[in-house]
Amino acid sequence: MKRLLITGAAGGLGRLMRTRLAHMADTIRLTDLTEMEPEGDGEEVVQANLADEAAVHDLVQGCDGIVHFGGVSVERSFDLISDANLRGVYNLYEAARANGHPRIVFATSNHVVGFHTQDRRLSAHDPMKPDGLYGVSKCFGEAMASMYHSKFGQETALVRIGSCFPEPINHRMLATWFSPDDFVSLIECCFRAPRLGCPIIWGVSDNDEQWWDNSAARYLGWRPKDSSARFRDKVEAANERPSADAPDSVYQGGAFTADPIHRD
Amino acid sequence: MKRLLITGAAGGLGRLMRTRLAHMADTIRLTDLTEMEPEGDGEEVVQANLADEAAVHDLVQGCDGIVHFGGVSVERSFDLISDANLRGVYNLYEAARANGHPRIVFATSNHVVGFHTQDRRLSAHDPMKPDGLYGVSKCFGEAMASMYHSKFGQETALVRIGSCFPEPINHRMLATWFSPDDFVSLIECCFRAPRLGCPIIWGVSDNDEQWWDNSAARYLGWRPKDSSARFRDKVEAANERPSADAPDSVYQGGAFTADPIHRD
Amino acid sequence: MKRLLITGAAGGLGRLMRTRLAHMADTIRLTDLTEMEPEGDGEEVVQANLADEAAVHDLVQGCDGIVHFGGVSVERSFDLISDANLRGVYNLYEAARANGHPRIVFATSNHVVGFHTQDRRLSAHDPMKPDGLYGVSKCFGEAMASMYHSKFGQETALVRIGSCFPEPINHRMLATWFSPDDFVSLIECCFRAPRLGCPIIWGVSDNDEQWWDNSAARYLGWRPKDSSARFRDKVEAANERPSADAPDSVYQGGAFTADPIHRD
Amino acid sequence: MKRLLITGAAGGLGRLMRTRLAHMADTIRLTDLTEMEPEGDGEEVVQANLADEAAVHDLVQGCDGIVHFGGVSVERSFDLISDANLRGVYNLYEAARANGHPRIVFATSNHVVGFHTQDRRLSAHDPMKPDGLYGVSKCFGEAMASMYHSKFGQETALVRIGSCFPEPINHRMLATWFSPDDFVSLIECCFRAPRLGCPIIWGVSDNDEQWWDNSAARYLGWRPKDSSARFRDKVEAANERPSADAPDSVYQGGAFTADPIHRD
Amino acid sequence: MKRLLITGAAGGLGRLMRTRLAHMADTIRLTDLTEMEPEGDGEEVVQANLADEAAVHDLVQGCDGIVHFGGVSVERSFDLISDANLRGVYNLYEAARANGHPRIVFATSNHVVGFHTQDRRLSAHDPMKPDGLYGVSKCFGEAMASMYHSKFGQETALVRIGSCFPEPINHRMLATWFSPDDFVSLIECCFRAPRLGCPIIWGVSDNDEQWWDNSAARYLGWRPKDSSARFRDKVEAANERPSADAPDSVYQGGAFTADPIHRD
Amino acid sequence: MKRLLITGAAGGLGRLMRTRLAHMADTIRLTDLTEMEPEGDGEEVVQANLADEAAVHDLVQGCDGIVHFGGVSVERSFDLISDANLRGVYNLYEAARANGHPRIVFATSNHVVGFHTQDRRLSAHDPMKPDGLYGVSKCFGEAMASMYHSKFGQETALVRIGSCFPEPINHRMLATWFSPDDFVSLIECCFRAPRLGCPIIWGVSDNDEQWWDNSAARYLGWRPKDSSARFRDKVEAANERPSADAPDSVYQGGAFTADPIHRD
Repeated sequence: MKRLLITGAAGGLGRLMRTRLAHMADTIRLTDLTEMEPEGDGEEVVQANLADEAAVHDLVQGCDGIVHFGGVSVERSFDLISDANLRGVYNLYEAARANGHPRIVFATSNHVVGFHTQDRRLSAHDPMKPDGLYGVSKCFGEAMASMYHSKFGQETALVRIGSCFPEPINHRMLATWFSPDDFVSLIECCFRAPRLGCPIIWGVSDNDEQWWDNSAARYLGWRPKDSSARFRDKVEAANERPSADAPDSVYQGGAFTADPIHRD
Repeated sequence: MKRLLITGAAGGLGRLMRTRLAHMADTIRLTDLTEMEPEGDGEEVVQANLADEAAVHDLVQGCDGIVHFGGVSVERSFDLISDANLRGVYNLYEAARANGHPRIVFATSNHVVGFHTQDRRLSAHDPMKPDGLYGVSKCFGEAMASMYHSKFGQETALVRIGSCFPEPINHRMLATWFSPDDFVSLIECCFRAPRLGCPIIWGVSDNDEQWWDNSAARYLGWRPKDSSARFRDKVEAANERPSADAPDSVYQGGAFTADPIHRD
Repeated sequence: MKRLLITGAAGGLGRLMRTRLAHMADTIRLTDLTEMEPEGDGEEVVQANLADEAAVHDLVQGCDGIVHFGGVSVERSFDLISDANLRGVYNLYEAARANGHPRIVFATSNHVVGFHTQDRRLSAHDPMKPDGLYGVSKCFGEAMASMYHSKFGQETALVRIGSCFPEPINHRMLATWFSPDDFVSLIECCFRAPRLGCPIIWGVSDNDEQWWDNSAARYLGWRPKDSSARFRDKVEAANERPSADAPDSVYQGGAFTADPIHRD
Repeated sequence: MKRLLITGAAGGLGRLMRTRLAHMADTIRLTDLTEMEPEGDGEEVVQANLADEAAVHDLVQGCDGIVHFGGVSVERSFDLISDANLRGVYNLYEAARANGHPRIVFATSNHVVGFHTQDRRLSAHDPMKPDGLYGVSKCFGEAMASMYHSKFGQETALVRIGSCFPEPINHRMLATWFSPDDFVSLIECCFRAPRLGCPIIWGVSDNDEQWWDNSAARYLGWRPKDSSARFRDKVEAANERPSADAPDSVYQGGAFTADPIHRD
Repeated sequence: MKRLLITGAAGGLGRLMRTRLAHMADTIRLTDLTEMEPEGDGEEVVQANLADEAAVHDLVQGCDGIVHFGGVSVERSFDLISDANLRGVYNLYEAARANGHPRIVFATSNHVVGFHTQDRRLSAHDPMKPDGLYGVSKCFGEAMASMYHSKFGQETALVRIGSCFPEPINHRMLATWFSPDDFVSLIECCFRAPRLGCPIIWGVSDNDEQWWDNSAARYLGWRPKDSSARFRDKVEAANERPSADAPDSVYQGGAFTADPIHRD
Repeated sequence: MKRLLITGAAGGLGRLMRTRLAHMADTIRLTDLTEMEPEGDGEEVVQANLADEAAVHDLVQGCDGIVHFGGVSVERSFDLISDANLRGVYNLYEAARANGHPRIVFATSNHVVGFHTQDRRLSAHDPMKPDGLYGVSKCFGEAMASMYHSKFGQETALVRIGSCFPEPINHRMLATWFSPDDFVSLIECCFRAPRLGCPIIWGVSDNDEQWWDNSAARYLGWRPKDSSARFRDKVEAANERPSADAPDSVYQGGAFTADPIHRD
């Protein structure tokens, strides 16, 4: 690619992936609402608000790929989520439509199915069960991507990210851990495939515990290589086992299911 | 019921159902953004904006049931849809949470699956394929209802309405027609059931053409009694058959699938 | 048929069906552990204990059909259930094997799936979820019938009876009611079919509420004709609506799910 | 329609439907390999061999609809079946391609699934299990229709006919009977639908015994109105019940499953 | 764990696993109807009859985990099976209920599905097809576990054991072999999981031949590591290939399907 | 085996497998319509036409296994396909029936499902969607094999071959490549299994891209060992990526879907 746009570059995912994705394009354009690390070689850093339509159109112009990590990524008030994850997503898809439909990798979340219990193995088309306003906003994002695909041919990989951290740090993450390396190889597959479509892909490594069945997305040729298994002893040493009735033991969304509605 | 709130009372559905639902409660509270017919016996008429949080809390207070027809019901700009169908829905569910969780009948739409083709028979859990911003906003509403059910026990009947008109007026409506009487009997079932949960119900009569399988909702005891069959000759006389490639012949969402994104 | 054996003739089902099945055979042999009404024309009345192997062999001898209503039909102690519903069923199948495999209509129960919730529509092969020792004993009976079919060709209709009473008498029975006439027509179909096999059939009328999908058994040619709908007003007048959290509103097995283990 | 071609007009189906379909077009063109009844008003009678490519092109020219009853309809030698049901079908589809793709109603057969047992309820996409060379040739025909649809947009209704006779005449036909009137209404639906596609439809009336699930084809708006039930007593009086192990009791294809390969 | 109860300690499975499970608890309490090897360090050996309710309550008291290998494990008379596998299981669950619901790993068997053919790949919820009285008794045990889970929250891992031997010794075991090491790692997972529920797990190693799909149980984080493949040559050298019609080639339950009913 | 017949020995597959299958039998009988390489040790070379019934009977006589690569393997005229793939297959199965039913490995093709899109993962029983006359002829072959299995017990492995070449040579083959070694090991499994039945097996290696789910055939004990992954760089260097709308990117059958009907 000539230029790849990465939104949410100052957030957890963004910082984790910034250098790991450097090889994907001649230029990486990085954006966030807040301040980012200074521009390096082959990088463009542009501070912008996803809720600002004109700004988003400027961001997308000239890009032939988008990795969308931007927006709110935890439970917050409706106002905050509305700006970033509802209007922001609309702005992004309109900007893509105006700019030749660059392919999008969209970071959606396991929290769209957070209220399913951990003893169920889900396929991509099991019913949504979002676990908070954040989860609801990601359902909205997936619906938006589907509509732009059906209507305009816009291609998006909807990656329902489990827990993308350098390593798993609690019991639940033994099931949900998504290694940064596996995420990189997935992004590579998404941009390499001759035809992407608009698949839902579970963003999770090849862990022993498995709640999510990715076989429907095997046409893309992606196989995760990492597993949380090598961190199990460390995780179990550092954490007491959650009780059998704790949200972290019961629901796929873990503690998010117990979050209140944030009123401010 | 003591008091039933009907939102969107000035819209097509609202006007069609206003008198038909009069028997459901001692008082019917009617609301809309625009002017409504004057208050009758056993009615309260309150003009209000669903995007106004305080106003919505006032509307819901004192009601033990809600029939939500309110919001935008055709393809419109994101701004209009955002106010009414995103923020408005959030306001409604927050108001219900603050007021003892009155049961809700929520008018969602076949346009959440509008890009499925007409030769498929869908169950409630086939993947969403919204056909425009309006359809996307209804996906959001369904997700919101699911979340409030999982998290707070709020019960909602998600009625994906086909075409609720006095009679079917074109070929597509032979399949999608939902007679007002069948809608009334469904609403009765939803409020009568000892336990409602948060089911997705296809709002459609017992037409000969059937795109939607309601058997999963049979636990509620609802059976449609009307059929579009008696209007077939009239419809065929009044309308030329759409060509085999017209959106009205191809997609379940019909002409909505061909709508552009409304930019203002 | 020459001679039809009806077990459990002194029980609720047995008394309800005794005259209704009189036309099925030249001779009806009636049996129960307790005293029955005196023998009428074309009847043989034989008091016997299903746990007594020799007695059961005598009962079955000379019969070319069996309708098995016998055994415990509510939650009781393990000892009582074991004698009647475990050993008794074994004795029945061994007796049938020794006597030319007369076809059996076996009254099993909705309580084999009693812990499924009322908002699910089950097929015959959804997982069992028995709601007490009684339900567990009926799982055993179904397994026994399956084994004798696979191994020896013994044919059995496993009828999972909902609520077979003259009329429905509470809210749950609006969904589970099985009219005696519909049961008779089902029994006729089971004995008339050239080939029966070992199907699981939901014993329920054509009620508006439907938890159970009988379509897999449509090869037998049985269609229920009755519906609980004509009793709805009477039921609703005579019973307060159960609360949304009562077992009668939540579980298919209703109040059985709340029974304790009977220790004596 | 201006002109409807009916092949196989001298066969059982053809004679049964000839007058019943007279209203479907200004002109009915009738064809068969053998002699037919003389031409009536609005009819054209053309004797022709389906294996003769040029003749078939002539037949199809000028027609805007085809009802294909032609070909071998019982177990015969490979040579006979090959000419009529393999080459003949290829000729028909090539002729349709050369003549503007008139819509086709294709009489395929339950014998494509004849080796499924009678205690299974099949959907249109259960695996084929043909019961003889005739059944295999109908699998071929269905595959041909599918290919011309995918490749050229040719629309075909693949009607897997049960037993289309004036009335059912044995036990098996109580399940498989397809009344001529129901077939007529189905053909009307197929030509009336704005978009037909290439559905598989079970050609069977609304009998009490049901082996075949037609719900996937409900989008066409067809509902059978007849039932074999009113002939049950007559059938049972006229026929001894087949034994439980007879092919007519075991397999959906009945006695066809016991046919040998015809070597001449 | 403080104390783990292992029933059936004198049987094949019990002897194979006794030392392999020594690390699972401070004290291993071993029990059987017959004499066992003398008590070792960290062991308690208690001879007892599972049919004796009081004895079973004593056994379970003070244990925080149970591995239930006890009972009859091959085809025997109904009397023997009834005592051990029906009453014995009831006693075990009642004892667990009275003693704080220690988690149970229950050795059920592939013989609950023994009459399925070997060319089918089963999930945990395919219909049961037991292949003898032993298989029927295991269906009963699974139903009992399900009921105690639904009613009282008792957690059980229902492990349908294939063939747990040091190595596979005939052709069928190439598919059914369950290595003792894989069984140990499964038991570890069952006791380690924060929440177990009541899953059905196929007890089988990662063999090339696979009749059983364990993906639904992947939430537990168990992966078998062994395969029968390394024993294939040895097995094929030592055994003639069974004929294509032998029970060992046709049915998943193998030779058990050909066992008679044991009458004494 | 004593003697294994390989048809189509002069074709691509035949030449690739000739030496690789040499170990399978004492004698390999090789046949083709055209000239083959001269006979080697343990080989018999017999030129013959599959459309010649007597010749095919001679070929099969004395063989206890058949690997059927013969017939047309690309899009050709109906006449050519009819002789080789319709009549030829009939002749082969009749010859097998007359000669003790030697087990058959039948090379069918992914082109029976060629019009499915590449973003779908198919099981063996998804609907056929052949992509040309060649694909239709393979549907016919599969139906014929099924019928001879149901009727006469003839066993066949229906191997739907992806792309069996020494290595993958374009982007589509990264998904469809079937290494010759994997094909050999599959053929070994098919002849080794005590009971084969008539399974549909996807002939494809363990590539990263996966359109076809082989789990239903895992009862045979076959696991592919090769992957196209090691050729990815070479393939991508040698080929431009096909456009997203090219048949090679859209359909599983690739360019075959764009072939015309060959009229001569």
